[in-house]
Amino acid sequence: MGLTVVGSVAFDDVETRYGKVTRVLGGSASYSGVIASNFTDVNVVAVVGEDFPDEYMDLLKNRNIDTRGLKKTRGNTFLWRGRYSDNFARRTTIETQLNVFADFDPEIPDEYADTSFLFLANIHPALQLKVLDSMNANPFVAGDTMNLWIDTELNLLKTVISRLNMIAVNDEEIRQLTGKFNLVKAGRALQKMGPECVILKKGEHGAMLFHHDEMFFVPAFPLLQFKDPTGAGDSFAGGLMGYLASVGKVDMDILKKAMFYGAVSASFTVEDFSLNRIKDLTKSEIDERFASMQSYTSL
Amino acid sequence: MGLTVVGSVAFDDVETRYGKVTRVLGGSASYSGVIASNFTDVNVVAVVGEDFPDEYMDLLKNRNIDTRGLKKTRGNTFLWRGRYSDNFARRTTIETQLNVFADFDPEIPDEYADTSFLFLANIHPALQLKVLDSMNANPFVAGDTMNLWIDTELNLLKTVISRLNMIAVNDEEIRQLTGKFNLVKAGRALQKMGPECVILKKGEHGAMLFHHDEMFFVPAFPLLQFKDPTGAGDSFAGGLMGYLASVGKVDMDILKKAMFYGAVSASFTVEDFSLNRIKDLTKSEIDERFASMQSYTSL
Repeated sequence: MGLTVVGSVAFDDVETRYGKVTRVLGGSASYSGVIASNFTDVNVVAVVGEDFPDEYMDLLKNRNIDTRGLKKTRGNTFLWRGRYSDNFARRTTIETQLNVFADFDPEIPDEYADTSFLFLANIHPALQLKVLDSMNANPFVAGDTMNLWIDTELNLLKTVISRLNMIAVNDEEIRQLTGKFNLVKAGRALQKMGPECVILKKGEHGAMLFHHDEMFFVPAFPLLQFKDPTGAGDSFAGGLMGYLASVGKVDMDILKKAMFYGAVSASFTVEDFSLNRIKDLTKSEIDERFASMQSYTSL
Repeated sequence: MGLTVVGSVAFDDVETRYGKVTRVLGGSASYSGVIASNFTDVNVVAVVGEDFPDEYMDLLKNRNIDTRGLKKTRGNTFLWRGRYSDNFARRTTIETQLNVFADFDPEIPDEYADTSFLFLANIHPALQLKVLDSMNANPFVAGDTMNLWIDTELNLLKTVISRLNMIAVNDEEIRQLTGKFNLVKAGRALQKMGPECVILKKGEHGAMLFHHDEMFFVPAFPLLQFKDPTGAGDSFAGGLMGYLASVGKVDMDILKKAMFYGAVSASFTVEDFSLNRIKDLTKSEIDERFASMQSYTSL
């Protein structure tokens, strides 16, 4: 059981209107894995360099995350440096040092191969395919992607998408992938490409789910403190997939709750830089916001 | 009982990616009044010119709208000409001919003065004040405004706001009015300026309500067909206030339903240009979408 997460573990340099941090822990697998650890057993597959500090490794281990799939290899850890505009509408990448991530060749440890829930964070579609082929079981797979792969690896990406149960995209990506401007039509078209679940990520406006012929909305959890959106999408996926893995099956009622858990999880991440707010997060804090979210959305 | 609406009845020339229309019926009082007529008795206070066609007047009368407060006067009807960008992110005003609206001096007919619900659409704050002073009863008042008045008539606008029960604003307006970037803080700050209800309009992302110390979210109703956002905000207000007037009192449970009715009402308006979709709209069509909206948002 549990959830296997394949993605990046990275250093981030981030600047927002609320401050600036350097060489903090980041990466899709860090955010999604730490959040998911509130719900279920988590296995991480990623790569870091020799410069990756024990402190960050311990942070993951302290969340009971299985790090046998997190390889330390020669070279430096992936580094992303970015800045958000004052109103958070734009994110500018100042620098990307792929470093050891350039040669990332995800290997699924035998102990992970029977996991029934798998989150493929945003990595090269060829690597996503390799991971899919490495799984023994027939897991429920959620995948993330980005414009870059739509532009440069569309065919490979389409093959990946055809094998996903769930895909998370933003409005630009879904329009680019489907050629449809209307988002309901785009959601339906993307479902036809493979995944029975399509999650449309809307940032500060929450997220929307297409599942078979149904739909569901969740707003972003309203916050008095918001510092840095980095990791929000991966935290959403971590909360959603972590909850699904904890239940062990997927239907519309379970997915609705999973969407709530996704939104609530992301709300903690963005309250502070890096994983500062979520590294000691508890399930009861999550459940408290889950209950508030219900009162914010239900008649 | 019923709802009195004070605003504009206008000609619109509108261009969107889906087409172009000329001299169609528009204006805040038209949209909000026609929508509200699904819920309650509606009185309209507005002004049109001699060029205003019987066909448009009949459209309002056919909805059983009381038009004794809709004056026909010498000159031409207010005309707005605008264009929406391809992704609807920007609205460009190409021309505004105020015409008879420049001298609009709203007079509340005696028959309207006892109405217990009043919607002050976006007109000059001095006129909004005049209307407030004309009411016999102590109605529940919702007001709309725009950046222009925040820039040019801030003090007068603040006086109006202090006398409103509800205000509808978008994110730019609420930040400008309160000086707060965080939207939860901005909502709370705007409540302190007077209205116990603040509605944050988020366009295609729906709307958010602050009521006393509670909050509520409603998404925009998902549509397969979307042609023209003109009138969406006024239709939202019309559905919301029409429902409140039909119930005759205001509390959080009623407001939640009113937010649903607002969102659902707006969804019909934007399916076509002008009032084409809503002029023959029925309450049962509205209630059908209301039920769908529940399934889209409730666990």
